[in-house]
Formats: sequence, structure tokens, C-alpha cells
Amino acid sequence: MVILSTLSISPKIVPKNLPGFPEFLPCDQILFNNLKNTIKNLCESFGFTPMDTPILESADILLAKTGGDTEKQIYSFKKGNSEIAMRFDLTVPLAKYVALHHENLIFPFRRYQIGKVYRGERPQNGRFREFYQADVDIIGSNNLDIIHDVEIISFIYTTIREIGFNDFVIKINNRKILNGLFSSFSCNPLEIIRIVDKKNKIGIDGIKRELEKIKISSDNIETVIKFLNISETKKNNIDVLKSMDIDNQMFQAGKKELIEIFEGINKFGIPDSHYMLDLTIARGLDYYTGTIYETILKGSKIGSVCSGGRYDNLSEFYTNKKIQGVGVSFGLTRLFYQMNVRSTKKSVSDVLVIPFTKKLNICIQAASFLRRHSINTEIFLEEKKMKNKLDYANKLKIPFALIIGDDEITSGKYSLKNLYTSEQKLLTLDEIVCEVKNPV
Amino acid sequence: MVILSTLSISPKIVPKNLPGFPEFLPCDQILFNNLKNTIKNLCESFGFTPMDTPILESADILLAKTGGDTEKQIYSFKKGNSEIAMRFDLTVPLAKYVALHHENLIFPFRRYQIGKVYRGERPQNGRFREFYQADVDIIGSNNLDIIHDVEIISFIYTTIREIGFNDFVIKINNRKILNGLFSSFSCNPLEIIRIVDKKNKIGIDGIKRELEKIKISSDNIETVIKFLNISETKKNNIDVLKSMDIDNQMFQAGKKELIEIFEGINKFGIPDSHYMLDLTIARGLDYYTGTIYETILKGSKIGSVCSGGRYDNLSEFYTNKKIQGVGVSFGLTRLFYQMNVRSTKKSVSDVLVIPFTKKLNICIQAASFLRRHSINTEIFLEEKKMKNKLDYANKLKIPFALIIGDDEITSGKYSLKNLYTSEQKLLTLDEIVCEVKNPV
Repeated sequence: MVILSTLSISPKIVPKNLPGFPEFLPCDQILFNNLKNTIKNLCESFGFTPMDTPILESADILLAKTGGDTEKQIYSFKKGNSEIAMRFDLTVPLAKYVALHHENLIFPFRRYQIGKVYRGERPQNGRFREFYQADVDIIGSNNLDIIHDVEIISFIYTTIREIGFNDFVIKINNRKILNGLFSSFSCNPLEIIRIVDKKNKIGIDGIKRELEKIKISSDNIETVIKFLNISETKKNNIDVLKSMDIDNQMFQAGKKELIEIFEGINKFGIPDSHYMLDLTIARGLDYYTGTIYETILKGSKIGSVCSGGRYDNLSEFYTNKKIQGVGVSFGLTRLFYQMNVRSTKKSVSDVLVIPFTKKLNICIQAASFLRRHSINTEIFLEEKKMKNKLDYANKLKIPFALIIGDDEITSGKYSLKNLYTSEQKLLTLDEIVCEVKNPV
Repeated sequence: MVILSTLSISPKIVPKNLPGFPEFLPCDQILFNNLKNTIKNLCESFGFTPMDTPILESADILLAKTGGDTEKQIYSFKKGNSEIAMRFDLTVPLAKYVALHHENLIFPFRRYQIGKVYRGERPQNGRFREFYQADVDIIGSNNLDIIHDVEIISFIYTTIREIGFNDFVIKINNRKILNGLFSSFSCNPLEIIRIVDKKNKIGIDGIKRELEKIKISSDNIETVIKFLNISETKKNNIDVLKSMDIDNQMFQAGKKELIEIFEGINKFGIPDSHYMLDLTIARGLDYYTGTIYETILKGSKIGSVCSGGRYDNLSEFYTNKKIQGVGVSFGLTRLFYQMNVRSTKKSVSDVLVIPFTKKLNICIQAASFLRRHSINTEIFLEEKKMKNKLDYANKLKIPFALIIGDDEITSGKYSLKNLYTSEQKLLTLDEIVCEVKNPV
């Protein structure tokens, strides 16, 4: 579409965003920032230190271990002589960071990172091309005790609760269980894992068909189906695990780890209702080697809102140092769209100062006073009618208007109007601070 | 996927960052985040609402009005059928945002945005390819009173003070002065402005030579030099302005605006030492139409750390609506490198809980209690010797260790060790909250 200007005849470029690149209006941006801030504060309350890595990395760093769908989704390009790629998660940059700065880090290294990542997926409900992730990880310089896998579960529980969800479940599994179970099959266990991972989409019959397609023997298909049925029993997690007896060393190792996890969970005070064993979850990414998690909001159609797990050799493509860790990634943008917070809309400003005098310096001094007392205060500086000024405050849902006229300046008391109740009071600046912070 | 070896035969990719893409170690990241947070809080205390736009935009949006050096510096690429570019500042995305969401915004629209921008410049001291900017802007839906230009100056003053600088000066000029003065010359005023802008680099003689090169008459060169000398007088800003009399309408309009600015500044309480008229500052970007600012840290060799100005037609490439505004952009990454804050290094955690018991659940409950009282608390979960655990806290500069053993659990009082003073006390959890928040 070309609009020829009535004023200047210059053709206009239609303002738009690229599809899959969300952008919020101010009221939603305030809410989104509240979500980001809540997660930041929770991370710091658990002693995770902030980390930030470039969004652009050398392509060989980011593509060190991908393949298949991920590689196709990566934004990459050439600038000068550099092959550049945009990060598609915050885990690969972490692997680089730890390998690069190993000598200067203190282990266990507990980090969080909140930032945008990029995936050239087809945009659809709950999927974006630019979106925020929040990751927390605990990295050992060599071994890392499995109790940290449980600490991450408790962090997930605390966080999802804190941001306002009550009805959710953290699903827990272990890669070794799946790898062990499928290791005797005549193909890469990962292929079977990816099929099993689709259980909720294609059902048991679909799984059967797909396994037949990749030429798994009917005996082995029986084993998989039997296994999937075990995983659906609603018995106590540990009992289910103990009842499984498959003669494979890796399977047994995974079983032992899972039992440790479920024994540890009690100590962290996570209620039974909010976690469960789910032997079918697998996580597509292949750097996981032990515990894996997904978190499902009950009643929501989107998939996992936070997922992660244990990796025994995070930085293997960059260094020979063994770097074990465990972590989780929250899909902030997806989570935000699931939140029902529309009713709490509020402006950034607590007070709008409305000058009704030529003595602007007095209005500015009043605003500075309130700001020093941690009250967000703006001054309406346009020459407009009082009605327009109050309209502005109402539209932005600013809770208080402070009207300063010459009479008020003489008396040292200003008119504070509560715009929710329409109540108006004459108060000193000190009294205004109290009133705004503790409205009656 | 081919795995050559779990240990070492596989060739490694050397971990590195692209040049010009800074990445901090945790201690510096904490300080950088403090800077970002201070600016965020200041923006909100002045009633600026948060805004966030995609880092990637359609190339035609970002390239609507550039040319010359800027265009060469832009990272752009093709993905599918889309020509995509990375934002190189936060002003052009603002222009798009206001044009796109005009119907849903409330004016004057006060926004801040803190985010990364990308410029493919040659990396050098104080210049980066990926860096943070923090922008604040006030946008009118039509006209915007010039008093807002002064409010922005007061915001600059407050912010640069608050982040720890005392010795700086905000230089103020008006584009109309320069455009008016040079409009009778036989070339685009912008060409002369760009030469004048280099005064500090090439000196008066250099300016003369460059003006001769573009065939400015010797009379006109005299005018420019005379003008540059006026601008260096240290007299009162308003007196200097009043003494200038050039018979050009645009020049006179600029002079009138500047006089209004300097009269307004007094009302905002900015000390004389921290602002000045500088008729030679010009700002390279051509969307400015009135007031322009730069901010110089005295004694620093880098250029302006925060710059901005008035634009009368911000979104002219996207809409016929007249969108007037004024704003400023802080170069956060550059500012950070100028800060001398190394002495205040501190960990994210306030307390490290050190379990000296098998009753991990008690340690976890203690940590949860402290977190609920806004004390950042981590638990040392590895099986290590006490010495290693205390070493960990000391290396991270965590101020307190809370040692929980079986005796302490029985007595209900835990050992809180102040790691700066080595003092150790037996305290209840309530007492620990007081002690950590108000260390003696």
C-alpha cells in the first residue's frame, strides 16, 4: 500500500512489525516487565548471579551441536568476513561462557539470564520468532551433586507459584531410563525418544505406526507400549520406579537417580500434587544426559512452559574440561500470554502533578520531593484545561493528581485528589507521601 | 550426529566472542545491572512508561531515513522472503511504534526503553558493535511545549548525578541556529554542520581547510570562524545569545527557543556549572530540528555519553500525522566503562547457608524464611569440607555464612558468621533477619 501524503507527497512506508515479533502497548508492557522483575528477584533470592551474553555469536559457536530442525530455524548471516548467528536459546551461550571464562568463575557457578532468543519457526499460537527466555543453571567445575537437580525443581515450583499459577504439575523423568530401555533396539535411542515424545499428539496407535515405519521389531514395539502404560499408573512415583526391572545398566542408573530425586523432593517441601514421574517426557535437545523436567499448566493447551534438565558435558564442543550442570528455562513470552492479569493494569506514575500556577519551580520542587520518597511522579507540562489534565491522568490510570495553585503555595498545603475515589484533601508534602503510600 | 569420543579426540571449537560484543564476568555484570536498574528506576520516578520493541525489524522500516555511514553500519540479512535489519538505535523503532500504535497511545506519551542496539563499526575504545542504550522521550500527538526540552535536560542532570558522576557538563544548542546561519551558503547546511561538529578533533585551521575543500567562499568561512569564536565566550548563556544578530528568520527562531530553554532551566534547579551553550554541537543524525544536547564527562576522552534533542516530525516516513517530540539517549555500555565502581563489588547472595547436618529440610526451611524476608540466600549443597564452603563464600564476597548443625537445630539458634569481620553469633532466625539487614 502506498499512501501519497497530502502534505508532502513523499510516499510512506507502512509501519508494521515482522510476524512472530511481539510488541506490547504500554499497559501490557508494564505487566510483562512485572513478570520479568518477579523472576529476576526470585533468581537473586536463590543466589543466582546475573549473566548476559551477546545476542550475536560466531556461527561456529552456536552451530557446534545442532542439526535437523534447530539448524533450519537459526537466523544467520554474513557481515564482512564473519559468519554470524543469533542465539536460539540461552544454554549454548552458557556452554561457551563457562568454557571461555572457566578460570575466572567460582564453582558451583549459579547463574540466571533473562534475554531474547530467536527462532525462525512458523509463528503460531504460543510460538514466536523473538521471545524472552529466563534460564537458571547450576554448573559444577567437575561433578555436581544430584541434590541440585532437586533444588531446580523447587525453584520451578516457587517461581510458577509466585507468578500466579496454582494448578500446574512438574513432570520428571531421566534420560538414562529411556536410553537404557531403547539401547538394545536396532537404532539410535534418540529416534525412539522423539517418537515417544509425541504421545500426547499422536496417541499409542500413532506411536505404534511410527515405530513400525522405522523398522522396530514387533517385540520391541510391545516393550515400548508396555513401558508407556507403566508410566501412566497413578501410584506413588517411587513405587512405580521400584516395580520396574529391566536388565540394563544405564536403565538401572537412571532408576537410581530418579529415586534419589523423589526422596530429595520431600525435603524441599514441594506438595505431592505439583510434581509427578512421567516416563514419556524426553526433551528434544540432545545435551541432556540425566534428569529432565517439563512443566504443564493444567487446562492450558500450550505445551511445557518451563523445561530443563541435567547435562553431564555441557561444553564438550569447546573444551576438554568436564562441565556438569543442571538448569531450567522459562518461556517468559509464552507464560505471559497465559497469565490472566488484565485486571491489575496500572500506570508507572503514582502521582501526576498538575500546575495551576505560573510558579513552575514550586511544582518541580514538589515532584522532586515525592521522587526522593520513592513515589513515581510526573508533571503535566502542557498548557491545557484542567479537564484535559485530569482526563490524561484517568486514561493512564494514575492513582493520584496533585493540584498546585497559587493559594496552595501560600498555605503550604496542596490538593491531592484520589482519582479512583474522587476524594480530594489539602495536605502538606509529608502527609502526601503517607497518603500515596498507604491510601485509605 | 557423530560423536568421536567422550573425552578428547574430538576437535574443539575455540570459545570466543565476536570483536565488539562485550560480555562481563559475574562481578562486573552485577555492577552493570545496578547501573541499568538505577536508570530504570529514575525513568519510572519521572513517570516514563516502559517500552520494548523487536531487535529485528523489516529493513524498509529501519532504512527509511538513513544514508551514508549509518546504512553501512547496519546489520541486515535476508530470511525467507523477508529483508531484515537489526535496530541501530532506539529512536527509529520509536518512530515506527508511535505511527503504528498512534490510536492506542495517550499523549503526551512518555516512554523509556533500555535495550541493545547494533552497529557494525570498527570496534575501538568506547565503541562497541553490540551495546545498551537507554532512551527517554516525550512525544506529543501534535505540538509539544518547549518546556519538555528543559525537562529532558533536568532528567539528564539527575541521572548522570545519580549514577555517580559529579564533574560533567550538558552542552546545549539549537539546530535552527546552525541551519539559519548556513542557509545562505551555496551548499546543504548539514555539510557545514558536520564539519563544524569536528572542531575538537581538527581545530579551527582544520575547519577552514575542510570548508575550502567544499568551495565555501572566504567571506562565508570568515562568518563561520567568527561564529565559532562567539560560541567560546564564557559569558552568561543568555547574554551571548542576545548579542548575536543575524538577519535570518530561522536563526532568530532558534535564538528565541534557546533563550526560552535557558530561562526554563533555572526553574528546574540545575546548577550553572552543569550546563552551557555550545553553538558548535550539531549531532550527526538529521531528524533533529530544534534543541540538541550532548553531555561530556570532564577529564574523560570519550565523546558525549548522552545526547539527544527535539524532532518536529519523528514519524514522517510512516505517517502523515505530525509527531513532535524530544528525547535523549544514554550510552549505557560506554558510561559503564567510565564508572569507577570496582571497589563496591558484592555478590548477589546476602547469606550462604552451610549445612553441617543430615537434616537438609531444616536448612531449606531456614533459607526459605530468609528469602521471604527479602534476603537473598543460597544453600551450599555439595559435600565438601567446611573450609571449602567458607572459601566459596569468601571468593564470592557473600557477606554472611549461616552454619546449621545438629546442635543448632536442637537449640533453635544458628551460627551467623559475618565474613567481613569474622565475628560469629548464635541467633534465632528473626534475629538473623535483623542482623543481616542492619549489620553492626
